[in-house]
Order: sequence, then structure tokens, then C-alpha cells
Amino acid sequence: MPKKVDHEARRREISEALWRIASTRGLEGASLRDVAAEAGMSLGRLQHYFRTKDEMLLFALRYIESLAQQRIRESIEALGREPTPRDIVRACLVGMLPLDEQSRTGFLVGVAHFHRAVHDPALRTGAQEGIPALRGLFADQLRKAMEQGEVRAERDADDEAMVLICLADGLSTYILLDVHTPEKAVQLLDMHLSQLFDGAGAR
Amino acid sequence: MPKKVDHEARRREISEALWRIASTRGLEGASLRDVAAEAGMSLGRLQHYFRTKDEMLLFALRYIESLAQQRIRESIEALGREPTPRDIVRACLVGMLPLDEQSRTGFLVGVAHFHRAVHDPALRTGAQEGIPALRGLFADQLRKAMEQGEVRAERDADDEAMVLICLADGLSTYILLDVHTPEKAVQLLDMHLSQLFDGAGAR
Repeated sequence: MPKKVDHEARRREISEALWRIASTRGLEGASLRDVAAEAGMSLGRLQHYFRTKDEMLLFALRYIESLAQQRIRESIEALGREPTPRDIVRACLVGMLPLDEQSRTGFLVGVAHFHRAVHDPALRTGAQEGIPALRGLFADQLRKAMEQGEVRAERDADDEAMVLICLADGLSTYILLDVHTPEKAVQLLDMHLSQLFDGAGAR
Repeated sequence: MPKKVDHEARRREISEALWRIASTRGLEGASLRDVAAEAGMSLGRLQHYFRTKDEMLLFALRYIESLAQQRIRESIEALGREPTPRDIVRACLVGMLPLDEQSRTGFLVGVAHFHRAVHDPALRTGAQEGIPALRGLFADQLRKAMEQGEVRAERDADDEAMVLICLADGLSTYILLDVHTPEKAVQLLDMHLSQLFDGAGAR
């Protein structure tokens, strides 16, 4: 295996060990040493791939997000037709909810990163880049839906996009706290989408 | 001072020390010993008031929530008129957002508790009691607003109430990550409330 591929593969293995800790006992207080032990390697070897907990956490988060994006693309393809703006927005939002083990782990890794980012301006940069990009994607779809008459033209696409992201975040939190079931969360999301996609041309 | 009052006062002092840690370096990895040091007492003395980190965290959370409720009551009284259902719902939601140091600390203590509750079924009981009570309060106000024609009768009061709670949660997260300003978050909340309170009798 070429060296670069090997390096990436090792970083992924370490990320998967970190996920296992996130989904079982939680990342609070988990050290680089704990993750190394879970990955079956020495601390020194792990530090060859990640120098700090934050570097490791960010890589693990980006990696699980890339898997989520892959699943979202697959769910859109599985529709078997040209996706509407609403299809795309819904698939992304459903993909953000912790509905199975992988997305649950992804959300928990995200929460651990959030927890550190609140107290570290440098770490917040990641969220400051990622969320506006997602908001932009949703806003573009909402503008398309406005042109097609599915969303009323007087709506503010950027603001509605941010409300969608906030809603998905809160729905996820209360799935993990067992306040509502995953099915109920999806139902609340669909209720909100029906209210948003209520233009004259909406089905 | 009677013994019981003294006990409660000491628990509040310890809670305030915990808040200071939550709002500065964060509670991740903070031990009972760290909180005792911040409160200027020995670990043994702190354990006279709280036996576990979870017991301390829950008390600190309930205490800061009670201060938030007091501020919400004051903001409703400050309106200087009989509050409408929308006034009450809005005051509660704005009171949940991290708009100043105290509410910011409250949200961070809540996140720390969330982080532990995800991995501990016993701890989740707190959220499972608190959130449905809040949802019930909002749903009651929405039903009143329906009777007054401020909210359309075909809406589902319980579901809309839960969407409000989820939205406030997500809006708060992205204030703390500096994705949007507190002012922007309040504007998004008001946009959502205007869409919800869009009945024939709404002003």
C-alpha cells in the first residue's frame, strides 16, 4: 500500500475507535491514551497520526460527516426520479438526525466537538465554515422552490434555511435524551416542511 | 441561620462555583475536587453537600433554571399589560436563549448534563420530566391562542410546542458557536412565531 493511503487508513481506524468510545461511554474525559488503547496501538503510534485530541476529534467528525453525505446521496438516488428541492432538503435533514447507530455516533462526536469549541475560538472556525455552507445549500434549494411556486416568494430563503438547521439540531438532542422517538422527530420535521413548502404550486 | 437554610445556601455557593467553571474552561473533565477548589472548600466538605458529580450538576442546573424562570416572570410583568399567549411563549423562548452571561452559563451547564445523560438512563429522567412539562405549558398557550383565533385551529398544539423547544435549542447552539449573533437568533425566533401566530385574529 502506498504510504499516503496507509496514513489515511490508520487515521480512519483511529477515528473508528474514537466513535466506539463516543457511542458507548462518551468522549467526556477520554484521552489520546484511551483512544490509542481502543484502537489497539501505543500512544506514541497514535501521536504519529494525531498530535492533539482536537485534531483527532475534528478528523473523526469530518470522516463521519463524509459517510453521512454518502448516505444522503444514496437516499436521494433511491428515490428513482429527478429530486425536487424539497426532496433534497428533506434528505439532508433526515440524514442529520440520529436515526441509527452511525448517525447517532456522528451527532455525539459533533456534540463533543461543540463542547470544546465553545471554549476555544480556534475550534469554532470549523463550525463557522460548515454551517454557512449547509445554510447556503438549503437556501439555494429554497430559492429554486420559490421559482417553482412550491415556497412562497415572500419567505427569506437564508433565514428559513437556518431555522431548518436549528430545528434538526434540537430534534436530534431530544432523540438522544429519549424525549421523543426517532419516528416522532421525523414527523415533526415533515410537519415543518409542509408549512414551509406551502406555495401555490406545492403538492 | 437555621441548619436547613445554611445547607441550601452552601449548595448554592457550590453551584455558583460550578457555573464559573462551566462558563470559563468548561465542565468537561472537571472533578468534584476542581469544583471544591473553585468554591474555596475541601473536597470532604463539598461531599457533605453533594455525593456525586451528577447530583451536583443536576442541582446546579435546577438552580440556574429557577433563576431563568424568575427572569422570564419579570420580563412578562415588565410588559405592563395582561400577557397574550404569544407574549408568554415568546418570553419563555427568549429566556431559554443564551443572550447574556447567566443564560449562557445555564445553557452550558445544560449541555454538560446532556452529555452525561446520553450515556446514563437514570440521568435522562430529568430531561424526560422537564421537557414534557415545558411542552405542555407551550401547548396550553397555543390552545388558548387557537380559541382567540391567533393560531389556526388545524395546527397541532403539542407538535408545534415541541418544534418551538427544538428550535430554541438549535438557535442557542449556534449562538454559542458564533454562527449567528444573539440578535439574529431572536429575529429567527420572531420570524417563526409570526408564521405560527398567523390565524385570522392575529395582529
